[in-house]
Amino acid sequence: MSVRYELIAQCPETGARAGLLHTPRGTFKTPIFMPVGTQATVKTMTPEELQDLGAEIILSNTYHLYMRPGEALVKEAGGLHRFMNWPRGILTDSGGFQVFSLGPLRKITEEGVSFKSHIDGSQHFFSPEKVMQIQMDLGADIIMAFDECPPHPSTWEYARNSLDVTLRWARRCQQAHHREGQALFGITQGGMYADLRRESAQRFVEMDFPGYGIGGLSVGEPKPLMYEMLDVTVPELPANKPRYLMGVGSPDCLLEGVARGVDMFDCVLPTRVARNGLAMTSTGKVVIRNAQYARDFEPLDPNCSCSTCRNYSRAYLRHLYKAEEILAYRLLTMHNLHMLLQLMRDMRQAIIDGSFVAFKKSFLARYGQESQE
Amino acid sequence: MSVRYELIAQCPETGARAGLLHTPRGTFKTPIFMPVGTQATVKTMTPEELQDLGAEIILSNTYHLYMRPGEALVKEAGGLHRFMNWPRGILTDSGGFQVFSLGPLRKITEEGVSFKSHIDGSQHFFSPEKVMQIQMDLGADIIMAFDECPPHPSTWEYARNSLDVTLRWARRCQQAHHREGQALFGITQGGMYADLRRESAQRFVEMDFPGYGIGGLSVGEPKPLMYEMLDVTVPELPANKPRYLMGVGSPDCLLEGVARGVDMFDCVLPTRVARNGLAMTSTGKVVIRNAQYARDFEPLDPNCSCSTCRNYSRAYLRHLYKAEEILAYRLLTMHNLHMLLQLMRDMRQAIIDGSFVAFKKSFLARYGQESQE
Ligand SMILES: [Zn+2]
Ligand SMILES: [Zn+2]
Repeated sequence: MSVRYELIAQCPETGARAGLLHTPRGTFKTPIFMPVGTQATVKTMTPEELQDLGAEIILSNTYHLYMRPGEALVKEAGGLHRFMNWPRGILTDSGGFQVFSLGPLRKITEEGVSFKSHIDGSQHFFSPEKVMQIQMDLGADIIMAFDECPPHPSTWEYARNSLDVTLRWARRCQQAHHREGQALFGITQGGMYADLRRESAQRFVEMDFPGYGIGGLSVGEPKPLMYEMLDVTVPELPANKPRYLMGVGSPDCLLEGVARGVDMFDCVLPTRVARNGLAMTSTGKVVIRNAQYARDFEPLDPNCSCSTCRNYSRAYLRHLYKAEEILAYRLLTMHNLHMLLQLMRDMRQAIIDGSFVAFKKSFLARYGQESQE
Repeated sequence: MSVRYELIAQCPETGARAGLLHTPRGTFKTPIFMPVGTQATVKTMTPEELQDLGAEIILSNTYHLYMRPGEALVKEAGGLHRFMNWPRGILTDSGGFQVFSLGPLRKITEEGVSFKSHIDGSQHFFSPEKVMQIQMDLGADIIMAFDECPPHPSTWEYARNSLDVTLRWARRCQQAHHREGQALFGITQGGMYADLRRESAQRFVEMDFPGYGIGGLSVGEPKPLMYEMLDVTVPELPANKPRYLMGVGSPDCLLEGVARGVDMFDCVLPTRVARNGLAMTSTGKVVIRNAQYARDFEPLDPNCSCSTCRNYSRAYLRHLYKAEEILAYRLLTMHNLHMLLQLMRDMRQAIIDGSFVAFKKSFLARYGQESQE
């Protein structure tokens, strides 16, 4: 098996898990946050900087790399790791979420999805087999089965049909996938319906994937509803496989996800909000353009050990941001990624120490609840 | 004296000089190239990266910092070095060149220049005394006297009057300047007229500055004309003071400037062209967006030891540039700065070794002549 999950410790009150994900590219500590490198780069960052931050695995997007530079070129470069000079783990998503986000630009059939490029309007077709070929060519360590991600809200009937299509596509993915050392994860769906979530999880587990994505969440629903869906999904998943909540990355959602037994997360949040001048600090959000920081010569987060907080003041960061300097986006991205990666490490340690519940409570009291950007 | 020049070696054929610039912030090896950090940041780079590249002194712009964030804020932060976390040398320009570039937005009188902000159109006034106050507040190691930079072309009469104004302003700058450990350089002018260039240099030398800028060149004139102006200016300047050719940074101009006895240079060229996808390599320019590099998995410059060339291929750089990723601008800036800083180090060594003429010839044969961007 190309990926193996090892449980190290579990919080008896919540089910939060500390584990190890053994892969051919190394062993990663879970729970883990995967920074997003959509176009074969985690925006503004070098791979060396990501390693210095302690990132162990990143996510890259199948749809975007297929469009540009094309998977054939990446394959010719020796695969995605070599192309972007990233020696640690890579997970590629299925392209499903991106394609379905195209809305009127795409058409779904049993065979697959036809859609128009967001770059030049050209016509394309993704089938489960095509998506497997692309991801095999890209050469990530973990790849995702092609799924249909129902919009929110969807009717029960739509979610039910979508679930069936996703299962049939997942089987075709399993049949088409043949790359040594690369793990294919399934993606459970089911909309916002508990019965469908349970059934989707059960039927995916029957198909025996080395890991399970939980898809179709964080698509605009209220957070309590997302947590409810996690509450019905995770108990159906086997304890010896990793669980991956897709597209989630605000600190409160990471805590709540881990509390429900999730092991892996990815999200554009820390990198995207950084470019909008927003820092996630230990005491909540800082909107760096605000006038209150103009003469604030303190670090962004006095409790943070990242290089941004060690070397620069809020006043300087604000100046850079107002002046639209690239260094502003770099320094805020650096901090936000450090903050989330450190949060994951702290959660893991708390689980091992048996203090996860107290840690969660204290973190949220300092940080404050937030709605996801 | 706050800045002292020490001559180490001189090329007997050309007059090219290897020297040391002793400043309170350390001793810098000349000839030297100063990367430009207009808004208190060398675009896309961290100070740590600049240090790793071997940059010893950078230039920052008085006009821009006065506009944003304002010199009072920088002073409150503890000065420009501390504000931007740069421990080595800083030179601030006089603001003259920026103000005169505003064209119809500015009006020149004997007292100074009134002008409108490029940011919000508000009204401002720069006098020699005001420019000294700003630069004293910013706290650079070397500051420049306020000069009038005549447009190109200018009549002899215009250049003559402009020279006189600049001299009177320079005297006012000397009177107004009083900051320990900060050196005030004069800026010689004279348009494209040999007699005026000579006279300007002589009259500035009489005023005994610790260093001399050569201004009003690289303003659109043909390169041979610029070299002619250097040929008449430099011999008038004392051997025991540094000579600084302002706003020049293409490899061929650096070689020709050093060959004429210039010690210091600054230019936005390496950082600006990088953001336009242009790399300066040992064998000439590389326009990275060109289709010929799509599947070129070789380094940008096989003869370069910078981290961009050690870690990434031309194909990856092209992908990043086409995808408008910030990492493209970072990696190209890194390479271009390394290229120029290494060129300065190589020139210095060649002067010391007595092989400057051969070095210059061989470099230009490989690189090719170029017109300045
Ligand atoms: Zn930080
Ligand atoms: Zn290089």
